[in-house]
Formats: sequence, C-alpha cells, structure tokens
Amino acid sequence: MLSELLLTEINRLNQQAKLPLHRQLYEALRRAILEGKLAADERLPSSRDLVQDLHLSRNTVVAALNQLTVEGYLISRVGSGTFVNPKVPQRLPRPSRVSKPPAQRLSQRGQALSTLFCASELEVQPFTPGIADFSAFPVALWQRLQNKHWRMTYPDMLDYSSSGGYAPLRRAVADYLRVFRSVPLEVDQIIITSGTQESLELCSQLLANHADTVWLEDPAYWGACKAFMATGLSLHAVPVDDQGMAPKAADSATPPRLIYVTPSHQYPTGAVMSLARRHQILSLARQHQAWILEDDYDSEFRFSGPPISSLAGLDTEERVIYLGSFSKVLYPGLKLGYMVVPKGLAAAFKRAHYDLNRPGQMPVQAALAEFIDMGHFASALRRARQSYAQRRQSLLAALQPCLGKHAQITGAEQGLHLCLRLPDELDDKALALQLGKLGLLVRPLSAYCLGRSDLRGLVIGYGYAPLAEIEHFGPLMAKALVQELASFEA
Amino acid sequence: MLSELLLTEINRLNQQAKLPLHRQLYEALRRAILEGKLAADERLPSSRDLVQDLHLSRNTVVAALNQLTVEGYLISRVGSGTFVNPKVPQRLPRPSRVSKPPAQRLSQRGQALSTLFCASELEVQPFTPGIADFSAFPVALWQRLQNKHWRMTYPDMLDYSSSGGYAPLRRAVADYLRVFRSVPLEVDQIIITSGTQESLELCSQLLANHADTVWLEDPAYWGACKAFMATGLSLHAVPVDDQGMAPKAADSATPPRLIYVTPSHQYPTGAVMSLARRHQILSLARQHQAWILEDDYDSEFRFSGPPISSLAGLDTEERVIYLGSFSKVLYPGLKLGYMVVPKGLAAAFKRAHYDLNRPGQMPVQAALAEFIDMGHFASALRRARQSYAQRRQSLLAALQPCLGKHAQITGAEQGLHLCLRLPDELDDKALALQLGKLGLLVRPLSAYCLGRSDLRGLVIGYGYAPLAEIEHFGPLMAKALVQELASFEA
Repeated sequence: MLSELLLTEINRLNQQAKLPLHRQLYEALRRAILEGKLAADERLPSSRDLVQDLHLSRNTVVAALNQLTVEGYLISRVGSGTFVNPKVPQRLPRPSRVSKPPAQRLSQRGQALSTLFCASELEVQPFTPGIADFSAFPVALWQRLQNKHWRMTYPDMLDYSSSGGYAPLRRAVADYLRVFRSVPLEVDQIIITSGTQESLELCSQLLANHADTVWLEDPAYWGACKAFMATGLSLHAVPVDDQGMAPKAADSATPPRLIYVTPSHQYPTGAVMSLARRHQILSLARQHQAWILEDDYDSEFRFSGPPISSLAGLDTEERVIYLGSFSKVLYPGLKLGYMVVPKGLAAAFKRAHYDLNRPGQMPVQAALAEFIDMGHFASALRRARQSYAQRRQSLLAALQPCLGKHAQITGAEQGLHLCLRLPDELDDKALALQLGKLGLLVRPLSAYCLGRSDLRGLVIGYGYAPLAEIEHFGPLMAKALVQELASFEA
Repeated sequence: MLSELLLTEINRLNQQAKLPLHRQLYEALRRAILEGKLAADERLPSSRDLVQDLHLSRNTVVAALNQLTVEGYLISRVGSGTFVNPKVPQRLPRPSRVSKPPAQRLSQRGQALSTLFCASELEVQPFTPGIADFSAFPVALWQRLQNKHWRMTYPDMLDYSSSGGYAPLRRAVADYLRVFRSVPLEVDQIIITSGTQESLELCSQLLANHADTVWLEDPAYWGACKAFMATGLSLHAVPVDDQGMAPKAADSATPPRLIYVTPSHQYPTGAVMSLARRHQILSLARQHQAWILEDDYDSEFRFSGPPISSLAGLDTEERVIYLGSFSKVLYPGLKLGYMVVPKGLAAAFKRAHYDLNRPGQMPVQAALAEFIDMGHFASALRRARQSYAQRRQSLLAALQPCLGKHAQITGAEQGLHLCLRLPDELDDKALALQLGKLGLLVRPLSAYCLGRSDLRGLVIGYGYAPLAEIEHFGPLMAKALVQELASFEA
C-alpha cells in the first residue's frame, strides 16, 4: 500500500523533472507525511523492505530517510525503527475560501499603489501618449557596441557599482548637459540610476521624511505621483497655467519639502515654464528651504528653437536636482537614467543608492557611453527629432478641421504628445472611451488632474505611431471630434 | 565693449563643444544678462550692428535674439529696439558658505538611509562575505546567447514589461522552484524583478503600511534592514538561535505585519531553520494575519544533502512570498531576481510593479531563460557548488588551529560565508579592524546585531576568494586569531 503510493508519486515526479532518485523518494515520503497518508507515530517499513518493494538501491533509500530524519519529518527510535515524527503538523486542508479576498489583503498603501495612477492596463497603440518609437533603434549597432564591451569586460564590470555609475558614461552625460541644457556641473554630481522612477524614489527617500509635502503640478505625470505615494509623501497639487506651475500665496500655507516640476514641457499640458516663473519657483524653494526636482523628460525633442535654460542652470543655491532618462532616445527597457545632485549631497546619494538599490549593468553602461561619445546618440536624436516633428505636423494637419473656439492645442512644439484642450462641460473620459472603440487610444486630460476639475481635453501621443498610421487614423479622430463638438458650436 | 565680451564668451564656448553659432551667441548674451554685465533696461545694439561687430550672419543673430525674447530675457519695444528685460533677476552671487553643511540638508530618514547598514564602503577582498565569485562566469557563452536574442529582438522586447517578466523566463524559474525547492506554484505567480532589494521594497509597499512592524532576524541581513527602513516600517528584532528565528511569547506584544526570514541559511549565523520552527513561524503568521518574506538567498549552494523544504512549500494559506536572485549564480550586475507571490495577489503586484518600477531588460531576460533551459544554469551551479565547497574546506582546514572552546563555526555547510563564533567578552569590531590591516577583510558579527549585545564573532566570506588566496591568507588569519584567543585560554 505504502509502496504503491510512493511509486505513484515517484513516477509523477519523474515526469515533471529529472530529479535524482533519492530526492524523488524523499519528496514522495514528505508529501505522504504532510498530507496525512502516513500518520503521526506510524512506523516506516525497514530500509531493507523499502529497497525490495521500490526496486531502489540501498544508498538511495538510506539517503532519503536520513534527510527526512535530519529535517525532523522522521525520528529514529533505537531498536524499534523509524517513525513519523508526531510533532510534524500535517498540512491543513487548503481553506477553500476562508481567506479574505485578495484586494483586502493588500495594505492600504498597497491598494492605493495598485489602483491609482496606473498606466499598465493600457495597450500601446496609436495615440498612447508618452511613448517613443523605439522600433527605429539601431539594434545591430547597439549589439556591436555591447559585444565590444563584453569582450573587454573584466570581472569588476560584472559587479555592482558603488561609485555612481560607469565613469565614462558619467563624463559623457556631464558634457551633454553642460552644453545642451546649460547645467553647470562636475562629473562627480552625476549618478546613473535605473531610470526616473528610481531617481524620484531616491530623492524622496533621502531629502524628505514620511508625510512631508511635495508640490506637484496639476495636472501631473502619473509616474511621479506614484513614486511620491510609495515613499510616503503628502501630495499638494498646484495648478498649472500656460507658464507652467503657478503657485499662489495660499499654496505656501502647505509648505513643500520637495517641488516636482517639468518646466521645459509640462506633462501633459505642454506649457513651457516662463523665465519669471522659473525664478519664482527658485525663490519659493529658497523661502521654504525646499528642494526642486526638475524632470527634463523630453527636452531633447524640441522642434522649434533651442530649449529654454533648465532650472538647474539658473540655480545659485544648489536647490535643484536635475533628472533625465535615456529611455526616450534609446529604448524604454534599457533601464538607465541619471540625476545631477548638488555637490554636497553626491557622496550620501551614492552610498544610499548603492545600499538600497545595488546598481549594476556596467557593460550596458559602457556600451551607452561609447554610443554617446561616438556621436550615435546625437544622430539618433537628430533622426528622432525630425521624425517626431513630421508626425506632429501630420497630426496637427489632420486635426485642423476640429480646431477652433472649442478645441485648441496647448503647449510648446516639443515632445511626443500634444494636448488638445476641449470645452469644460465636455466629458473627456467618455470621449476617450468612444475613441478607444475606433482603435484610437488617447487619454482624457481630466485623468491627470489631481485636485482641479476645470480641465477637459485629450492627451494624444504621436511618438509611437508611424507617419502612415497618423495619416490614416488622424482624420478619423478629427471626424469624431468634429461631431462631438458640433453641439458646442450650436 | 559688449562685442568683445560676447566674442570672448563665444570663443570659450567653442572650445568646450561644437555648438551652432546662434546657440553660442544666445548663451553668451544670456550669461552677460544673468551676471549683470548687461544691466536691466539696457538697450542692445541693433541686429545689424551685432552682425557687423561679431562677424556673424544675420540669421544667426536674429535666431539668438528671438530665442532670448521668447524666453523673456529680452523685450522688444516697438520703434525703439531691444532691451534687457528688467524683470530678469540677476544671478545672485553664489552664497559662499551660507548653506547648511550637507549632512544637515538630508532629511532625517535620508541621514539614516545613507549612514546605517552600509556595505558600500567596503572593498571587495578576501574574505568579504556575501559575494560570489563571478570571475568564472562564462562571458563568451553569455554573449552568444545575448546576441542570439538581440538578433531575434522585435520592438516589443525593447519596451517595458507589464506582465511580470519575459514568459519563458518565468516558466524556467517556476520549473526550477517546483523541483528543487518544493515550492508548489503556477507560472503566473512569478514576478521577475531587478533583484531582492526591489522585491523587498515592493512587498513592504504593497503589504504593509507606514509604521507597520516587520519582524527581522537578529542578527540580520543589512540589505533587508535598509529596504524596510526606506519603506517606513518599524523594525522589531527577534533573536536567532541555532534553529533560526526564535520568537518568544513576548514578541507577539509587537505583532508583525511582515516576518522576514532566511530559513535555509540564516544570514549571517548560518543556522538552518528547523522544521518545528518553520511550522511555528507559519502559525505565528496565521495568528497575526502577517506575511512571511522568505529570502532563499543562497539555498543553491548547499554542500551536504538536499536543501530542506522551503517555507513556501509548507505554506497552506498563501502567507509566504518567496524571494530569489540570479546574482549569486550568474553575476551581481545582471540585476535580475524573482519573487513568488500568492495567486490572489499576482495581478495587483504586477500592476504596481509596472507602474512604480517600469521593469524592462527583456533581451537579457530572454538570454537568461535560454541559459537556464539549455542546462547552463545547472552546470554553472554545479561548478560553483564544487568550487565553493572546496574553498570552504580549505578555509576550515586553515582555521582548524584556532577552533576550540572559544571559537566555533556555527551553521550549515552552505553558501558563501561562514560564521565564527567568539567569546562574548571579545571586541570583534576591533579584531576585524586589526585583521583588515593584514589585508583580511572580514566583518564583525556584532555589526549585524540589531538589538542584542551577546553575539561576538567574525563573518568570513570564501565566495570571492580564489582557492590560492584562501590557502595563503587562511593561515595568516588563523595565526592572528590564535594570538587573540590566547588570553581566553589562560
């Protein structure tokens, strides 16, 4: 009876994977004990009997019994044999539906983190915003560079990095930022991270305490909301106007520890922060002894004129942390970004980053450094900029019929998306759903709003949609919008 | 005068990097304004004059002036020319030492995170614990696999992954865990993360609220302490004995929301959690409605007998999250690990993971899946296990002269380090410093203690030290220890 049970189980295990025989017997006996098929204090057949019944070698049987004895499933009683240890609690019958429904088993913050500001459910389709077209990424060249660095890789390159990242990559990033973003900096201030989410969490963890206030733009970038929620900050929404975040005197009643802004191209409205506003934000930061997190997420893709100087470039008091990412010029899954931290904080940031996040990926960092140094980054950027400008043009042309008093494009000619402002009385969420049914995945502007309820519109991405798709789907969208807006024209 | 200033600045910019001319002029003018060299309301020379003085084309000059006007540095007054906008605040002189010293500018939690439980300062040397020998990693093979997958890469592989990771990798991990760790699971429960630190933070964020209690082993793994601190948990230290974490009735006065354990090889003491203790922990988790985080960090490197079943394998109520990493068998900088979450939580975990961390690295995940499926993981493991067993043997042999009543090796024959228990009156921190001066970087056991003060010893890694180094340095260490212990023998 026991032999049969064991043989069946062994046979089943054998089909699943090639385990050594003694391990199969061990597992079969263990399951029999836990499932109560071998009762507490039950005496096992002698190893000699088991050898015979199961057609296994003596070594196999002895190894399995020894391990079970070591682990406490079996006990040996001298002179009388081997028994099932009565102290082994048998596997309880799996409670069918005793356990709470899953959502209730997450913590309160877990529920918030898994339900609020979630982009994950959305498919990537024309016109999902915020996504670059990585289909044009020069995979063959990238592979060549990676290979070169893997060939040269010495063991240290396989380890974690405790110095803020691969030195030549940090140099390349510093050169780029000095010249193109007017950020005055030393290489030592650059920290390579796994992207903006990690940068944001780290800034929040190191510069703010739990329940400290972060000022966010309203409407805001979801990823930042999420990172601040995850790190326990209290979110204070400051409405955005056509010059970017527009703090009023009343906002200072909720003094910030962090101020998170996207000044070069507000996400999602597209507003460019004016110079006066930049100085206002810097002065508020000084007044409140707060830090500014400047997320310069798509400043690379400005289509008309050079970008406006970064806040980091205007900062005279080391109050700005500048955040950037490579995912929009290379590809999202690369998982490399960077931050520029004030000199006085660089050592503490590197130490905490290493100990919290264990950064690695040095061969990829090396390939990226060479990608930049050899000019491939600049040419990828040039190509991408041209291609996105074309797409934007094409989308604008297609939308022309629906533009007018009740529908305006807001923001600068930059980035991978545009924001179409619609009448305040319009239900933009219903409209986005309706467009979704036509295969046009856009996002309602109101979905990005934190506190205000006066903004309606659509956030339309053109980064991921090839020109041909824009030419095909753009007019469809315009037609649907013209219909929707007809009632307002009346 | 202005022309000279501008030309000097342009010349300087030109040496730094190849900017377009209009950008150089823009930058030169901008700096002159911010630094007060061009005063508020000062009238600029006409563009015609600038063209002549600077020997630049009209287009260049107009582009620069336009951009500065758009940004608000300059204003045009119809009929009278272009002026420096009086609203531009001039760059304040950099306050020399007005700002607080850096350490004070971190938040309280930032100070804790950048100073407590830091491993980052330590060099990797013989006998730093916790580090595997990645010098033997088959780089050429890995490169071949990566190349293969990069060649086959379709654009989606370059994107983030919202499904918990690359499906074949999740399947490979599930097969491995089912067979070798007796974890009953479905592929859908596996989530590929960037390593154990990310796994721990995510579990804490999703399953606990701020200020909830986590029970930790005392002594404990630093990385886990850090992750729980960063996510705002309250740390409750439960002393470890030779059967692992040993909760007493008094501990239940501080009921846990999470219980973090390393049952297969307690870090750093090496204790293997007994079966009875495993059932006690499971039963406490049930009683407190708590989650168990089972960190099975080095169960692959067990040198005698098969590993004891995981807590996840004994769990009947979906209370265990099982955590593993690839960094010890492949290499640390790979940044890939995994967790097994209960079925009911898998969807919420994937969503939150995507939205918080934006996981990526799909081509690397594909290469790793094939590395496992083709048996390379198993053979790397076999080779590593043999090599670490040898190193352990050699280290034990070298330490033999100092072992005795006052110095004992604790824990199982497993992993990449051993724990040498020393007399309670000995200053193990001073001893570790003293050994450090001989080039022997070990860690004092007391440095891992959270609340208790009764543990003295050394945590000695043999994972990273080649056999020859152990043979050379081991006897040196033994000699120093014998001297140190002489006073206790008297």
